[in-house]
Amino acid sequence: MATVTETAKKYKVIGTRPIRHDGVDKVTGKALYGADIRLQGMLHGKILRSPYAHARIKSIDTSKAEAHPDVRAVATALDLAEVADTLAEVGEDVFTSMKYIRDNVLASDKALYRGHAIAAVAAASPHAAEEALSLIEVEYEPLPAVTDVESAMAPGAPVLHEHITTSGLDDGPETGTNVAAHDQHRLGDIDKGFEEADLVVEREFRTKTVHQGYIEPQTATAWWTPDGNVTIWCSSQGHFGIRDSASQILGLPVSRVRVVPMEIGGGFGGKLQAYLQPVAAVLSRKSGQPVSMTMSRAEVLEATGPAPGGLVRMKIGVTSEGRITAAQGYLAFEAGAYPGSSLGGATACMLSPYNIENLLLDGYDVVDNKPKSSAYRAPGAPIGAFAVESVIDEICEKLGMDPIEFRLLNGASEGVRRADGVAHGRIGMIETAEAVRAHPHYSAPLDGPNRGRGVAFGFWRNNTGPSSVVASVTPDGTVMLVEGSVDIGGSRTAVAQQLAEVLGIPVEDVKPQVADTDTIGVTSNTGGSGVAFKTGMAAFEAALDIKAQFIERAAMLWETAPENVEYEDGALLHRSDSELRMTFKELAAQLSDTGGPIAGRASINPRGVGGSYAANIVDVEVDPETGKVTVLRFTAFQDAGTAIHPSYVEGQIQGGAVQGIGWALSEEYFMSDDGRMLNSSFLDYRMPTSLDTPMIDTEIIEVPNPGHPFGVRGVGEASLVPPLAAIANAVYDAAGVRMRGLPMSPGALRKAMEEKGGE
Amino acid sequence: MATVTETAKKYKVIGTRPIRHDGVDKVTGKALYGADIRLQGMLHGKILRSPYAHARIKSIDTSKAEAHPDVRAVATALDLAEVADTLAEVGEDVFTSMKYIRDNVLASDKALYRGHAIAAVAAASPHAAEEALSLIEVEYEPLPAVTDVESAMAPGAPVLHEHITTSGLDDGPETGTNVAAHDQHRLGDIDKGFEEADLVVEREFRTKTVHQGYIEPQTATAWWTPDGNVTIWCSSQGHFGIRDSASQILGLPVSRVRVVPMEIGGGFGGKLQAYLQPVAAVLSRKSGQPVSMTMSRAEVLEATGPAPGGLVRMKIGVTSEGRITAAQGYLAFEAGAYPGSSLGGATACMLSPYNIENLLLDGYDVVDNKPKSSAYRAPGAPIGAFAVESVIDEICEKLGMDPIEFRLLNGASEGVRRADGVAHGRIGMIETAEAVRAHPHYSAPLDGPNRGRGVAFGFWRNNTGPSSVVASVTPDGTVMLVEGSVDIGGSRTAVAQQLAEVLGIPVEDVKPQVADTDTIGVTSNTGGSGVAFKTGMAAFEAALDIKAQFIERAAMLWETAPENVEYEDGALLHRSDSELRMTFKELAAQLSDTGGPIAGRASINPRGVGGSYAANIVDVEVDPETGKVTVLRFTAFQDAGTAIHPSYVEGQIQGGAVQGIGWALSEEYFMSDDGRMLNSSFLDYRMPTSLDTPMIDTEIIEVPNPGHPFGVRGVGEASLVPPLAAIANAVYDAAGVRMRGLPMSPGALRKAMEEKGGE
Repeated sequence: MATVTETAKKYKVIGTRPIRHDGVDKVTGKALYGADIRLQGMLHGKILRSPYAHARIKSIDTSKAEAHPDVRAVATALDLAEVADTLAEVGEDVFTSMKYIRDNVLASDKALYRGHAIAAVAAASPHAAEEALSLIEVEYEPLPAVTDVESAMAPGAPVLHEHITTSGLDDGPETGTNVAAHDQHRLGDIDKGFEEADLVVEREFRTKTVHQGYIEPQTATAWWTPDGNVTIWCSSQGHFGIRDSASQILGLPVSRVRVVPMEIGGGFGGKLQAYLQPVAAVLSRKSGQPVSMTMSRAEVLEATGPAPGGLVRMKIGVTSEGRITAAQGYLAFEAGAYPGSSLGGATACMLSPYNIENLLLDGYDVVDNKPKSSAYRAPGAPIGAFAVESVIDEICEKLGMDPIEFRLLNGASEGVRRADGVAHGRIGMIETAEAVRAHPHYSAPLDGPNRGRGVAFGFWRNNTGPSSVVASVTPDGTVMLVEGSVDIGGSRTAVAQQLAEVLGIPVEDVKPQVADTDTIGVTSNTGGSGVAFKTGMAAFEAALDIKAQFIERAAMLWETAPENVEYEDGALLHRSDSELRMTFKELAAQLSDTGGPIAGRASINPRGVGGSYAANIVDVEVDPETGKVTVLRFTAFQDAGTAIHPSYVEGQIQGGAVQGIGWALSEEYFMSDDGRMLNSSFLDYRMPTSLDTPMIDTEIIEVPNPGHPFGVRGVGEASLVPPLAAIANAVYDAAGVRMRGLPMSPGALRKAMEEKGGE
Repeated sequence: MATVTETAKKYKVIGTRPIRHDGVDKVTGKALYGADIRLQGMLHGKILRSPYAHARIKSIDTSKAEAHPDVRAVATALDLAEVADTLAEVGEDVFTSMKYIRDNVLASDKALYRGHAIAAVAAASPHAAEEALSLIEVEYEPLPAVTDVESAMAPGAPVLHEHITTSGLDDGPETGTNVAAHDQHRLGDIDKGFEEADLVVEREFRTKTVHQGYIEPQTATAWWTPDGNVTIWCSSQGHFGIRDSASQILGLPVSRVRVVPMEIGGGFGGKLQAYLQPVAAVLSRKSGQPVSMTMSRAEVLEATGPAPGGLVRMKIGVTSEGRITAAQGYLAFEAGAYPGSSLGGATACMLSPYNIENLLLDGYDVVDNKPKSSAYRAPGAPIGAFAVESVIDEICEKLGMDPIEFRLLNGASEGVRRADGVAHGRIGMIETAEAVRAHPHYSAPLDGPNRGRGVAFGFWRNNTGPSSVVASVTPDGTVMLVEGSVDIGGSRTAVAQQLAEVLGIPVEDVKPQVADTDTIGVTSNTGGSGVAFKTGMAAFEAALDIKAQFIERAAMLWETAPENVEYEDGALLHRSDSELRMTFKELAAQLSDTGGPIAGRASINPRGVGGSYAANIVDVEVDPETGKVTVLRFTAFQDAGTAIHPSYVEGQIQGGAVQGIGWALSEEYFMSDDGRMLNSSFLDYRMPTSLDTPMIDTEIIEVPNPGHPFGVRGVGEASLVPPLAAIANAVYDAAGVRMRGLPMSPGALRKAMEEKGGE
């Protein structure tokens, strides 16, 4: 795992690989995850879920359940607050209406997917709660269901939301529709662009609904006291976001909802939204006792937000020299039960590796009778890139052009506009392509038959948001770093490293923790690959704040002006008296007696985000008998900007690659005709295991982001963008078939090979 | 409960009586106290205690206990760190050596009182732990014990600490002694003073060891992980103090000890010291599991720090007009097993109500075979005041002078020096005396025989220390106030009121919480009546910090200079454009989008402490048959400076009065000749109940402290200073006997009345 880096020379702490601060707590069981909370008198909550993929709810009779001797409370949508139909960010770059979120938490008039929450029970034991669910009588009027994007868009399809109409979407007569939104990006003159092309390739791609597959299921414990304050313990990708959703759904001011962030067992975008939290809160309000709820794996798969399935038609024109003249895309994404898919992430990013003057992207957000989709690591971008990078691979083949030469020729650079009109800042696309070309893997021989190699590129724009940090200096010179960013991938350490770098102290002398919503200021979600960027920058500012106060305190002790004191390498120096020198630790021990303790703080909402490029070289072998694809070698490249903790950057890259292998080869929601998920267990929903994946080799490219003091870009997501196409391109190289539908399961690939053989 | 106050007119939030923020959590059981922690795999720890009041420990064999199938760890003093013999503050104004604290936690070479911790066991159940204690074999060499101050000081008394000698204490040959320290205060010329006196009264007083009697016993839970970090959950009067002690006793840097403050069920000075915390930590280290320990009531009484018993000889000379010319005192206080009684509090405060130019106080800190004494509300001062105020009452009687006239004539005022040489600042002694004289109780008739009235005064100096506050503004305009001061008497609200006053917002819009040692900066103990002063001042400064940032943010939004923005009554105004106005809440909602959230912070160690005066008028009836004293009426006066939350000030005054009634009339440690406490239960240790006390009427005097922005003095302790003498003086008025020993139990009083009758 080589790292292309200058960092180690420039910095003392940044670029090193310390052991994570929370490591021992996590391996010894001291760290508490979502379901580890035990409270006096705690009840157990369970949810009754719709057996129909689409049905009108005519009545809910909870009286028999309420009469159950062990039941303490029953809740339905009537117990939730009225919520205005306002737009809310529910994932990174994924927006929906707050009213939809509420209706997804507990259905009001309609059940929109099998597994949709209808009612909830809190009882003295989980068994009693389960039993009581069967006593709730729901009268449904079943309706025909649609569970893929084309059926949902077909004329005469059953309409999920009667108030969504074609008005504004097209010019015909106004009818009900499942198309919730049309998102269009246009640059230049698309017709002129295609006229200039010598070669135009247009293909259609389909991807299935896939799940993030985090290990820890959704869980929430709530305790509502009679003064109208509720505490919620849960893991999430942003306890402030959960607080904000819960406060609206419960009709409480945000300050009355305290969300305590528990450790999280994986999120990948799927733990940004509220599911159980408001339900547990309502059950606690009605019972007067704390209520704990945890989903089963089937509930996680059937009722939380997976990544949407998508249909993408991609058309790209190039000159005979290989210069792209135009690109046009049509995208239709399955939002699931409520509007708001990750379409915007796809349209903004899918073409961003390239400099394309003429482009047109039309995206359609389509509801169907599946769980409301959610963010999944670079939301939307992998689906878009699968189409773009497959078409480009075909173009390179047709032109007889090396795929890296193609990227170097067409690669985006500073000033080039993305599809969404944003002009790139300093980016690392060209550096990434050069790193791929220079890597031994790129030119290594492929030994053996049925083997092939593919490459693909991808981009993720990254994100920012408010972030708050408080850092208190203890008498032993340790800095207690309190932050609001949930730590999923080691960010406690990556943020602590940035603080330590400024103060010139070892990162082991920083003790980071993630505090609850009452304890630290507003901090935005752990999403958009933003934590090392925004919370790192907050830590940087808090460290400067400490530094300034240390200088003032030293000046006071030395009876001189602050201007005469220098802070260097973790020590204070008198500029004109070399005898006067104090280490950070020495001064820390004297703070209380010289005026009081010192704390640094920063509350920011920084600009300056820098997007990240990723690329893969993948070797596969295709079994001609079974159609099974074996990934033989996988090298993943990514521009991290400055890699704060290279091991964690590598871990992110490896994780994205493995999730990409799953998405490409084996993962999918199998739906029955009546909208039932047929594989809602980890036995049947086939995520890759270590037996399915080779070692993922990584190469970090470091093109510092000028918008961050240390050059951080954010590394969590771009790694999942290229794998789908890279593997498809490798499969083509090995088996001679272009797979344009995912997953490339043995059955699908064998069928494609047979068809090709029969051509 | 009248309040002499101008506050209500001057302030909007200060001086009001809001419901405490933590009230609902406390009455619904949501608030977690020390023993409410439940952790995965938690073991139960128990302590083996010495059956001897004084013994050399020759050997401890723990092998059989270790072999018990349910035992996971056994600990002795050998498991604690070597600790330097350095002075440490263990209570407000009570100092001892860190080595003594360690030896008190687990005895090393000697057991110094019955109940002294010898060894500890952690087992899977409390019963197994108890059982295993009996398997520990300790070989003791019993030594003769001393359990009162006079026996301990007698020539030839058994010496507790061989290294403490008479060297430096007197001029004779150096011998072992139980006198650990001599504390002397001298002002003016004591001989000349007595020469000028027309009347000299000299009397001797004795008080017994009494306990603070908090409801919640000591408890601690610790979890030590293999990386050398330990988390301790416990209630205490200062988790930073517990952290500092534990870190030394465990040999860890302070940053590796995280102390989480649980709610506290009473402290009164008795929960400043570490007892169980280091033991639970060591057992956790050895077992690898979390360990929880809770004392029984008998353990609390026999092995935590009570207030010392004391012997005081007091001599006061006055002119025939009643002016004090000289005062001389001899004090000997029982420190208990290790040096460090509350002597200093007595000598500094006992004469401070008066302007005395010539004085001499000699205090002796005496060790004996009782549990190490601890702070108890105005530590030492009640014992000293009992002597001084009794002698003055007798002087007034002999002079035929009204006791209030005497106080007005001799009362201390600004500039007068206290016994410890400190010159008074602006104080409220005269105002307090005037309030007593003006109160209807002072002149009300005493209806019936055997009834009497007494008055007495008292002073407590109060204290300060470092304090840290962080206050984050939420989008709904609530301020999340994070402080480091443990809340015993409602200080969350009293501190929140000071923040709210500055910001011009309702106190309900402040949400205070006490954070752990990793989360907030260093904050000194909840002791010395200091929280409303020091943490209130920190909140004041944090609010100013928020205010300045709000002004800057408004200026940015209005595109003007901060100088053009005014902050008034919780709103921002443009000085020259009356159209431009924003409330605190309106701007709070916009913070994240206009640059980031806002947090205020302050970390201070303020000067400017102002002492507090208290006075009582007490009516009693003495049953001539039984000697039982019934308190008929009790009016308590106190100068609070500015009363931030008058109800909580009144509560403090009432609590001090009731504890004074117990100390005066019924509480005492009964010791057997071999040093066994014979009444170590709340059935036999007689604290007053509501049946033993009348309604305590209160009157708050408000002489603002110029050293605090709102005039706070601190009110927690002075209330316990006058009751002992006030009740004794009332008993004299009723029964004609001067009781100079406490408690004035029915037996003691009947004996005194019989002796007097027989004269």
